[in-house]
Amino acid sequence: MCHYIYQTVWESATEVEETIKRIQAHKGVMGVVIVNHEGIPIKSSLDNATSVLYSGLIGQLTEKARNVVREMDSTNELTFLRVRSRRHEILIAPDREFILIVIQNTTD
Amino acid sequence: MCHYIYQTVWESATEVEETIKRIQAHKGVMGVVIVNHEGIPIKSSLDNATSVLYSGLIGQLTEKARNVVREMDSTNELTFLRVRSRRHEILIAPDREFILIVIQNTTD
Repeated sequence: MCHYIYQTVWESATEVEETIKRIQAHKGVMGVVIVNHEGIPIKSSLDNATSVLYSGLIGQLTEKARNVVREMDSTNELTFLRVRSRRHEILIAPDREFILIVIQNTTD
Repeated sequence: MCHYIYQTVWESATEVEETIKRIQAHKGVMGVVIVNHEGIPIKSSLDNATSVLYSGLIGQLTEKARNVVREMDSTNELTFLRVRSRRHEILIAPDREFILIVIQNTTD
């Protein structure tokens, strides 16, 4: 039983690594960060300071977007958020436990 | 001079109306709202209560996104925001004076 659980966890961790690598390989992708719901980065391709800054700010923005969607219609739910700026575009996929953040270049 | 100004304002107002109608004609578009930077709707294809609710909430979210982009890089600027939910997608184009909001159906 324990073995099975460990194996599943291990396989998930490998899958996460693979997914990050796959996204990272796309043209224009500057960084990939996975954040938990406390706004703490648990996986990142960026340096530590940038990961912490981005996770905190994007975590707050995602929470705000989630609330706005619910206040507009209490039966509705946020599924995806895109923040485009002059320098880059941030793609945010919120899940139950984690938030996947992809930062890509818009100047390409 | 005064005539010229009135004519320009009038032409702009007509252009705004035309733009709203053109967007509104797209398949899946549920509503178009133009909001000023105080979060007050100045043009809308939705009913009054919905326009006021959406303008306030989306105005706040846009302000938050603007700040997040600036805090990540003080020389950067928000250009576009997309909020996708299970029921609809909100497209937000912030301009200097106004915010253009388009709500479209995601179930189509």
